[in-house]
Amino acid sequence: MIRHTVVFRLKHPAGSAAESKFLADALCLAGIPGVAKFERLRQTSPKNPYRFGFSMEFADATAYQTYNDHPVHRRFVAERWLPEVAEFMEIDYEPLAGA
Amino acid sequence: MIRHTVVFRLKHPAGSAAESKFLADALCLAGIPGVAKFERLRQTSPKNPYRFGFSMEFADATAYQTYNDHPVHRRFVAERWLPEVAEFMEIDYEPLAGA
Repeated sequence: MIRHTVVFRLKHPAGSAAESKFLADALCLAGIPGVAKFERLRQTSPKNPYRFGFSMEFADATAYQTYNDHPVHRRFVAERWLPEVAEFMEIDYEPLAGA
Repeated sequence: MIRHTVVFRLKHPAGSAAESKFLADALCLAGIPGVAKFERLRQTSPKNPYRFGFSMEFADATAYQTYNDHPVHRRFVAERWLPEVAEFMEIDYEPLAGA
């Protein structure tokens, strides 16, 4: 299992229609083959600069690569993510061996 | 639901006995009242400097505060986290309203 997460801050004002539309349109990613447990989240810790997060799980590295290469993902990154996201960090988790 | 996560890098060499002991001893946190879905994870993205993560869930802010204040947590932070962790970031997630 690979849990792919990204925590981010949008260029849009908090509570704006543009913010809502970005978060709604991101649901297109949930339908890409291999994506499981897709979540859109609010980031609430005051100890980092981010305000939202997406989380999803893949069975293995092949499924993750299929997602990365999928045209729906590539189009979302090019047309929505890069223009609308101010800053972000990707964090990927896998089970600790022996855990 | 509040998902409290922390992504971090240890001062210990990768694969060292000290690294293993830190990760094993962190299981004490899983037994604190209110902690659910405690996970120890390996961070595998090359796009950030961190190597491990912990994730846990609380029913609400009261349960989260109870954990923060619990002597087992406070002792772990003082005696293990602060001396052994090189850098870290806390990220907390809550469901997106309306999601």
